[in-house]
Amino acid sequence: MPATPLDPYRIANGKGFRLDRFDAGARPFSSGDKTSDRARLTELSTHLDEQQDIFYAEQSRKLLVILQGMDTSGKDGTVRGVFRSFDPLGLRVVGFKAPTSEEKARDYLWRVHAQVPRAGEIAVFNRSHYEDVLIARVHGWIDAAECERRYRQIRHFESLLVETGTTLVKCFLHISKDEQKSRLEARLADPQKHWKFDPNDLAERRHWDAYMDAYQDAIAATATPEAPWHVIPADSKTHRNLMVAEILRETFARLKPAYPPSAPGLDKLKVE
Amino acid sequence: MPATPLDPYRIANGKGFRLDRFDAGARPFSSGDKTSDRARLTELSTHLDEQQDIFYAEQSRKLLVILQGMDTSGKDGTVRGVFRSFDPLGLRVVGFKAPTSEEKARDYLWRVHAQVPRAGEIAVFNRSHYEDVLIARVHGWIDAAECERRYRQIRHFESLLVETGTTLVKCFLHISKDEQKSRLEARLADPQKHWKFDPNDLAERRHWDAYMDAYQDAIAATATPEAPWHVIPADSKTHRNLMVAEILRETFARLKPAYPPSAPGLDKLKVE
Repeated sequence: MPATPLDPYRIANGKGFRLDRFDAGARPFSSGDKTSDRARLTELSTHLDEQQDIFYAEQSRKLLVILQGMDTSGKDGTVRGVFRSFDPLGLRVVGFKAPTSEEKARDYLWRVHAQVPRAGEIAVFNRSHYEDVLIARVHGWIDAAECERRYRQIRHFESLLVETGTTLVKCFLHISKDEQKSRLEARLADPQKHWKFDPNDLAERRHWDAYMDAYQDAIAATATPEAPWHVIPADSKTHRNLMVAEILRETFARLKPAYPPSAPGLDKLKVE
Repeated sequence: MPATPLDPYRIANGKGFRLDRFDAGARPFSSGDKTSDRARLTELSTHLDEQQDIFYAEQSRKLLVILQGMDTSGKDGTVRGVFRSFDPLGLRVVGFKAPTSEEKARDYLWRVHAQVPRAGEIAVFNRSHYEDVLIARVHGWIDAAECERRYRQIRHFESLLVETGTTLVKCFLHISKDEQKSRLEARLADPQKHWKFDPNDLAERRHWDAYMDAYQDAIAATATPEAPWHVIPADSKTHRNLMVAEILRETFARLKPAYPPSAPGLDKLKVE
């Protein structure tokens, strides 16, 4: 594959991965002008919509987009900003909250496996099984040995998905601690955003450094050529959307969706 | 563990496994007298029912029984003969037929993972993901490389289940080709059994030897200490039920279910 501007942000081999080498405020996919960035995003959306239509018609391959990031990092915003233009017929967004008692009664990959995309479908996971090596580790619900076991189980699980026809697009929406502060303050200041405010977010914020360590280790342990991670500088919402859309454009360019051939005999049918 | 009569029939290491060394007509768990065999089965059923009750109360561990075998080998009969006495609250029987279009749109383990037992539950799989390395191989739907890949994926999948608290009991109901013949003839001769007769069973029967090879290889590739196979001589239905019940008795004897401790403070509560 020729080098692309995405290369520095695509982690296909986690060895030696250092999250602190990435600047959350960078805007490598931005033109520097918000208006032309938005025009570019509109253009990309139209293209992605066409590609998704053909991908759905194929009814064979699957696409799974995983969005991870700290509170306020823009997971919901990415769904709205990038995926809203897609045909809902072939798109399914799945939010993973704290597991229910039904879900806790199984292994942690159970509810995730149940939601993987079907042939022709694009599924977007808003949070995912990675929470089970992030919040679970930060709060000490699992020890180091269990965390390593889960990294392996996740690699095996994702390998199964890839080997059975799923393309994985794993995105870490990378924001700075300062940006989170201003977003939380904005939520508090705006009554219309109060519904998104969870007092627990403030408690989690106190674990910021532990979360960064957990993300770094999780990405390092699960970034593979078949299931790479993407670090998305996400302090700028416009840049974040643009970059995720560019990743999808590049993904479809590799997948080359094509309409399936017509069933034989169709040309002999007559409408009476 | 001390040696048990089950040892020769429990395959915990598939290396060198040879199915043709097992006699489908053997009755190692039979007393030789059908009446006392049935009395023993009743006794076992009562014991298993008690054990299941405590296992369910624990709400922590999971038990998955996988029943595989040729057509007419007695999978339905085992469910009826061994599991009917269990409390339905903690028992779920899942039949896996030819995958639906919904299921085919995902990887072959998807529908299986969705049905694994929850904490405290016993699930019985009537057929399972093993069909995907049995019928799929016999009919050449997958090549040797894909079959090996699936063996590995199945080992990883079962390893995940075991590492997350599931006990696997995998049973191959072993009947002879002659016994199948007489059971198929019996189904044809009895109008009340016609609903169980599928003309396709006759077509599958022509692949008998290929199925035996496929079973041998699948068991050899997926019998591990954590997820052993059991070869159940099943030409005798009474023996088959007795042996499966003995395996369950021995499984609970290892698991030692125990009622959980009462919540603290319960003794201070008053009923007004």
